[in-house]
Amino acid sequence: AWFHRSSALPQSGAPPLPQSSFFPSVDGVMLPPGTFTNRVAFITGGGTGLGRAMTTTLSHLGAQCIIASRKVDVLQQTAEEISKATGNKVHAVQCDVRDPQAVSQCVNQMEEMAGLPDIVINNAAGNFVCPSERLSPNGWKSITDIVLNGTAFVTLELGKRLIQKQKGAAFLAITTIYAESGSGFVVPSASAKAGVEALYKSLAAEWGRYGLRFNIIQPGPIRTKGAFSRLDPTGAFEKGMISRIPVGRLGKPEEIANLAAYMSSDYATWMSGAVIRFDGGEYVSMAGEFNDLRRVTPEQWKMMEAMIRSTKGS
Amino acid sequence: AWFHRSSALPQSGAPPLPQSSFFPSVDGVMLPPGTFTNRVAFITGGGTGLGRAMTTTLSHLGAQCIIASRKVDVLQQTAEEISKATGNKVHAVQCDVRDPQAVSQCVNQMEEMAGLPDIVINNAAGNFVCPSERLSPNGWKSITDIVLNGTAFVTLELGKRLIQKQKGAAFLAITTIYAESGSGFVVPSASAKAGVEALYKSLAAEWGRYGLRFNIIQPGPIRTKGAFSRLDPTGAFEKGMISRIPVGRLGKPEEIANLAAYMSSDYATWMSGAVIRFDGGEYVSMAGEFNDLRRVTPEQWKMMEAMIRSTKGS
Amino acid sequence: AWFHRSSALPQSGAPPLPQSSFFPSVDGVMLPPGTFTNRVAFITGGGTGLGRAMTTTLSHLGAQCIIASRKVDVLQQTAEEISKATGNKVHAVQCDVRDPQAVSQCVNQMEEMAGLPDIVINNAAGNFVCPSERLSPNGWKSITDIVLNGTAFVTLELGKRLIQKQKGAAFLAITTIYAESGSGFVVPSASAKAGVEALYKSLAAEWGRYGLRFNIIQPGPIRTKGAFSRLDPTGAFEKGMISRIPVGRLGKPEEIANLAAYMSSDYATWMSGAVIRFDGGEYVSMAGEFNDLRRVTPEQWKMMEAMIRSTKGS
Amino acid sequence: AWFHRSSALPQSGAPPLPQSSFFPSVDGVMLPPGTFTNRVAFITGGGTGLGRAMTTTLSHLGAQCIIASRKVDVLQQTAEEISKATGNKVHAVQCDVRDPQAVSQCVNQMEEMAGLPDIVINNAAGNFVCPSERLSPNGWKSITDIVLNGTAFVTLELGKRLIQKQKGAAFLAITTIYAESGSGFVVPSASAKAGVEALYKSLAAEWGRYGLRFNIIQPGPIRTKGAFSRLDPTGAFEKGMISRIPVGRLGKPEEIANLAAYMSSDYATWMSGAVIRFDGGEYVSMAGEFNDLRRVTPEQWKMMEAMIRSTKGS
Ligand SMILES: NC(=O)c1ccc[n+]([C@@H]2O[C@H](COP(=O)([O-])OP(=O)(O)OC[C@H]3O[C@@H](n4cnc5c(N)ncnc54)[C@H](OP(=O)(O)O)[C@@H]3O)[C@@H](O)[C@H]2O)c1
Ligand SMILES: NC(=O)c1ccc[n+]([C@@H]2O[C@H](COP(=O)([O-])OP(=O)(O)OC[C@H]3O[C@@H](n4cnc5c(N)ncnc54)[C@H](OP(=O)(O)O)[C@@H]3O)[C@@H](O)[C@H]2O)c1
Ligand SMILES: NC(=O)c1ccc[n+]([C@@H]2O[C@H](COP(=O)([O-])OP(=O)(O)OC[C@H]3O[C@@H](n4cnc5c(N)ncnc54)[C@H](OP(=O)(O)O)[C@@H]3O)[C@@H](O)[C@H]2O)c1
Ligand SMILES: NC(=O)c1ccc[n+]([C@@H]2O[C@H](COP(=O)([O-])OP(=O)(O)OC[C@H]3O[C@@H](n4cnc5c(N)ncnc54)[C@H](OP(=O)(O)O)[C@@H]3O)[C@@H](O)[C@H]2O)c1
Repeated sequence: AWFHRSSALPQSGAPPLPQSSFFPSVDGVMLPPGTFTNRVAFITGGGTGLGRAMTTTLSHLGAQCIIASRKVDVLQQTAEEISKATGNKVHAVQCDVRDPQAVSQCVNQMEEMAGLPDIVINNAAGNFVCPSERLSPNGWKSITDIVLNGTAFVTLELGKRLIQKQKGAAFLAITTIYAESGSGFVVPSASAKAGVEALYKSLAAEWGRYGLRFNIIQPGPIRTKGAFSRLDPTGAFEKGMISRIPVGRLGKPEEIANLAAYMSSDYATWMSGAVIRFDGGEYVSMAGEFNDLRRVTPEQWKMMEAMIRSTKGS
Repeated sequence: AWFHRSSALPQSGAPPLPQSSFFPSVDGVMLPPGTFTNRVAFITGGGTGLGRAMTTTLSHLGAQCIIASRKVDVLQQTAEEISKATGNKVHAVQCDVRDPQAVSQCVNQMEEMAGLPDIVINNAAGNFVCPSERLSPNGWKSITDIVLNGTAFVTLELGKRLIQKQKGAAFLAITTIYAESGSGFVVPSASAKAGVEALYKSLAAEWGRYGLRFNIIQPGPIRTKGAFSRLDPTGAFEKGMISRIPVGRLGKPEEIANLAAYMSSDYATWMSGAVIRFDGGEYVSMAGEFNDLRRVTPEQWKMMEAMIRSTKGS
Repeated sequence: AWFHRSSALPQSGAPPLPQSSFFPSVDGVMLPPGTFTNRVAFITGGGTGLGRAMTTTLSHLGAQCIIASRKVDVLQQTAEEISKATGNKVHAVQCDVRDPQAVSQCVNQMEEMAGLPDIVINNAAGNFVCPSERLSPNGWKSITDIVLNGTAFVTLELGKRLIQKQKGAAFLAITTIYAESGSGFVVPSASAKAGVEALYKSLAAEWGRYGLRFNIIQPGPIRTKGAFSRLDPTGAFEKGMISRIPVGRLGKPEEIANLAAYMSSDYATWMSGAVIRFDGGEYVSMAGEFNDLRRVTPEQWKMMEAMIRSTKGS
Repeated sequence: AWFHRSSALPQSGAPPLPQSSFFPSVDGVMLPPGTFTNRVAFITGGGTGLGRAMTTTLSHLGAQCIIASRKVDVLQQTAEEISKATGNKVHAVQCDVRDPQAVSQCVNQMEEMAGLPDIVINNAAGNFVCPSERLSPNGWKSITDIVLNGTAFVTLELGKRLIQKQKGAAFLAITTIYAESGSGFVVPSASAKAGVEALYKSLAAEWGRYGLRFNIIQPGPIRTKGAFSRLDPTGAFEKGMISRIPVGRLGKPEEIANLAAYMSSDYATWMSGAVIRFDGGEYVSMAGEFNDLRRVTPEQWKMMEAMIRSTKGS
């Protein structure tokens, strides 16, 4: 029964909790039109999932976007679709972020097409669930090479060129709520994302003087094919996840996109070195030792209260 | 020389760093007009400083605001000024948050005037610099009673009534960047603010099921009379503070207000239990062990590099 | 069925997990005999539970101990029993830590009997589980006044006198694993303990120059009557708690006592501002988003692996 | 003048602060003799610095030690010297932890010589100060390959074999105080160490059921040739570091060794997923926003107090 659903990501998964009606999502773009006019944004992994949503929002707000990942066909289709919807240019550039030379060439292309970026979003990643005792050195590297080294190569390459040209920029990295706590069964991802957070906090301190700022979003669970097909292939895990999210539902790519756009905008120029958890409250709900008491009924509480009151001494 | 400036808060303090030109502040309101139409917002300490700025922004966006603190004349003047500027009602209610009964009466008044709030901002606070060995029990309580107990009384009172009426709401608390790390010389504030953060993270987990969400902003230094006159009465400290802020300048009340408005809006309904540091990068800059190396010149780096390269073994 | 056990704390609760055989507890004293000869230790709440265990260990190691709390009869019996077992003096002093004057008088008595302490352990606390919407302002204060104000009054009073006399000391506070994350249903405790942690980290920074150092233990669940009768009065919660502890068992007071003795000893003079979680791994186990996958069987993993491998694209 | 000292690590660097007389270090071994009899300990980077100190302490306490790193001559000399001093076997095994195959062969050798370990200390690391804009992809990898991948390869290899043989073990990783905050100028190290912490917290949660526990020490500055020659080649930085350490002095390798031995012993079987900062208070001292006020004199405090008292309103 735990594997009752097919691996093709269904349109809709487990139902939200009742309280989610208090927490409706807003899909519309939040920032004022034209916020990013004449700005260039570079988004890794921009062809799918959250990267696609962030690109869409930035493009709607006037940015010229460059999206980069391995699958050039996916990128091109996304670029076209977004560009058509927003009327602003979206460029697709093939780039495997694990390869420093590929990164360098990709930035060359960007410089030619659009110039160095004002906004950089390190969003590309890989991940899959796996008991750690089944993990080979190659399995380990297949994730950390993308997430940690890839982010570093992109960030160092762009940082050096921006510094050289005395151009400011806002960097954003997408990590995860388990980057700080760690988590079993996604260990290479946890380690690599923690590394990304330290990288960004370090550079926020070091490179502010060059006009660069660095911030982080830690998303909780948001249904994308890339993430869910490798983290919950059977669909059996989703219900339990929702049941512990205080807001009672998964997040939506558009919600991340609005937050990311804010953080990348001039409304947030004073933000650097920040780490924003955006997860419907899942993290604090899991981490707090007595939160399971949510299952206790009002009648049971009355009885427990009476027992506690009658306790004498220590 | 360290006390060369008068205690009257000067219009402008220490100058920003050169890189601040990369990080211009935007004073305009970020969210779409009408975002808070038909919403009621309750802001403690809304008569001055950051509270006043947040009230102004919410009011501009259509909210009916209730501001509460001890000095009713200050509140009334602020209420009038904002209301005049925005065209929306701002109510002034006297309330000392240290007194649970006063809090309860204040909420009664609010219910009559505007109903229970959709947005609650716990912003009232007290603070002053003082070596801890000079701190009496009363000195300790003069801060913690406002910051921790005051926030708790307001939050519990409103939470109970909202739950009772099955009404959802977004709570926001204003803490500080030293709530996690602690800090000497402002110890009661550090302790109380840490308590507020735990309160909010706890309730984010516990009260999500009732339609309530809870988030936190940790501001870095923002020039307000209330804060700076008690934290840097001589003005001697400000320059050092700016020198370690990567973004090279203090924050502005309007920047906090835009962030607070976002967090209180439906664009952020999926945000709960989040703690957002907003400080120009000051925290990571102070905390990172090797950040003082920013003082090393390029020539010195070359020499150090040569020395490191020539090192053999461990 | 959830309330099947009596409120009298049974000798043994839920059984440990199989892996606990890998993690045997050692009850014996760890530090070399005489480690605390000629040292004076002050332990609040030293009459029961963890405080009693820490007092026992310090006394075994040669310290002259002063234990203080409200119930003088309990204190006196404990003092006698420990003193008899170890051959070293243990003094019982009545003191309600919520009352600054009582604290001052208690320290007067200690100074007369033994001099100012070399070791201070802030261990006194109160706590009970309760939905926050059932919490009155008095309920809130009944906990925070002991935990936060009580710790502050003891710490400030002793700190001032030690500084005045130019005497060094090691301070230790006992907090909890939910001080950082917060937790529903124990909200006043979470807030007050977070405040204690900030207090200690702040003073570690500020008062080092006076020869004082400050550290923290965050215990996970350890079966004491004081804690368990108010946190799990029915006994229904314990099994769930154990099931998520990686080490597979509750902690023992003697284990805390050995850690506390180490941190208070000269072996740890370089330790200050440290926060040591000691919880069998419970915190990381709860907090990590994918740790529930521990329930997946090896056969299920094989199938999931196949599904993941067959996934194409994002 | 900042480069006034030679790169050869002098016997003694900058002098300690006056308060350090309150905080004498104890060099002797803390745990009871024979604590590790019949235990096998594996220490990477055990030939020098902190690794050598930890090996010495474990060996004194009865453990059979295996030390592994790249320089086999250094290892052999250390092994001989320690073995001679303690009377217990110390084996030297050449191993570059960046190479999974080398790690596997090293473990083969260990299994033959001594069996699988009861204690594993991941201590090997590389680091050097460098402005990030001068860092090449190879420079980045030269550190992260040792620190993060190396630790992962060692941990996964040993974990798998221990699980297979149903043998319990205590793992310890040596990270750094800037792993959480990040730090400029040592960015690859900060990122990789953060990754190691997430790895350990993750496995603490996941592998407890197999009898394995995982803990972390974050050392502050301890004068070793390996660290200081690459982090402070000119010696110019040390004085500033000491000036902000509340305890007023650097740490000593023996102090780390006693803590590490405790954490690896059965006295700490209930400890897993813990992160212990051991740094003389440096971290909290740097991170706390108002700690610079330590420079204010008593006379200045009196004046500031008067100014604050005379402030009216906000
Ligand atoms: N969805 C969630 O619930 C969730 C939660 C927490 C964090 N996140 C984070 O959010 C980000 C986006 O995830 P998502 O859910 O949108 O999944 P996704 O659609 O799978 O996005 C991952 C993207 O990374 C790109 N990528 C992978 N390897 C690459 C490489 N070597 N070089 C360049 N690009 C590469 C992929 O494109 P190609 O295949 O074309 O290379 C893909 O577009 C990730 O950082 C993820 O960790 C997601
Ligand atoms: N400015 C900064 O750099 C900075 C940095 C970090 C955090 N913060 C935080 O930001 C918030 C606003 O500070 P601010 O800079 O705007 O200073 P502020 O103008 O002094 O604001 C504090 C407000 O709290 C109110 N208040 C004080 N005691 C009260 C009580 N017992 N009951 C009700 N209200 C009370 C005050 O009004 P009455 O006097 O009329 O009661 C005042 O309006 C505070 O929480 C502060 O800790 C500020
Ligand atoms: N056991 C656990 O699982 C656990 C877990 C995490 C943290 N802790 C912490 O460990 C510490 C000890 O707890 P425990 O389990 O040993 O429970 P306990 O036996 O109930 O200890 C609490 C002690 O505090 C004293 N106390 C309470 N109010 C006081 C007051 N106003 N003034 C002075 N003393 C007061 C009590 O003595 P009187 O009644 O005589 O005043 C009692 O001896 C506490 O800080 C607790 O929060 C325990
Ligand atoms: N000393 C401090 O102030 C300080 C502060 C914070 C953290 N730490 C940490 O403490 C640990 C020990 O540092 P230390 O100060 O004792 O410096 P160290 O003497 O330089 O120790 C580093 C050790 O790592 C070994 N190593 C380096 N690369 C290796 C590789 N590829 N494979 C296997 N072993 C390798 C080295 O031996 P070979 O050259 O023979 O390979 C050396 O023995 C490190 O993790 C460091 O990050 C130290």
